[in-house]
Amino acid sequence: MATDQLSTTLSALADPTRRAILARLTSGEASVTELAEPFEISLPAVSRHLKVLERAGLIVRGRDAQWRPCRLETAPLQEVDEWLMRYRRLWDERLDRLGDYLEWLQADGRKPRRRS
Amino acid sequence: MATDQLSTTLSALADPTRRAILARLTSGEASVTELAEPFEISLPAVSRHLKVLERAGLIVRGRDAQWRPCRLETAPLQEVDEWLMRYRRLWDERLDRLGDYLEWLQADGRKPRRRS
Repeated sequence: MATDQLSTTLSALADPTRRAILARLTSGEASVTELAEPFEISLPAVSRHLKVLERAGLIVRGRDAQWRPCRLETAPLQEVDEWLMRYRRLWDERLDRLGDYLEWLQADGRKPRRRS
Repeated sequence: MATDQLSTTLSALADPTRRAILARLTSGEASVTELAEPFEISLPAVSRHLKVLERAGLIVRGRDAQWRPCRLETAPLQEVDEWLMRYRRLWDERLDRLGDYLEWLQADGRKPRRRS
């Protein structure tokens, strides 16, 4: 079912361990062993998570057979960001309306004080 | 595994039909029949997608037993947006560096012309 790029990305991101791995990679490249350190899961389990991230294009791995460092790729995240655009507009508009309403409330609240 | 809210949201979004349903709801409430119209899938299949979206809190459904209109809820999407924040910073920085490099290239390209 989920064969389009955006669905593959979102599906890869729908796991707290995989998101934690990506967060770690924001501070630079890391080996599988380094990535596994903070988690109470086995190296093979981490490797499986990395394969999912790699298939989604969210990480790339170095060619060095001994030390294949993982690096974050932001392109799929940018696609998520673009998809979110139209929804961001929705809550921005709602916030604007709330702001207008609060301003109106404040303006309304000042009136009696001026009268007293 | 995926029991945290963000994972539930991302998992619900990892399907093109469910994203299309959300996109339709940006222009207002709609019934299941209305939502099913553009898709070549059965009403029960649409209902299953709606249940996934409802569990993730991405839609709410009216109480009217006859016509239970679906409405978009943006709160879970805002959580995705907040999660994306730190990554957005990454590609913004990369774009800035690219901009600096292009400026440097242009400045460097002007030098020989000045000399001739």
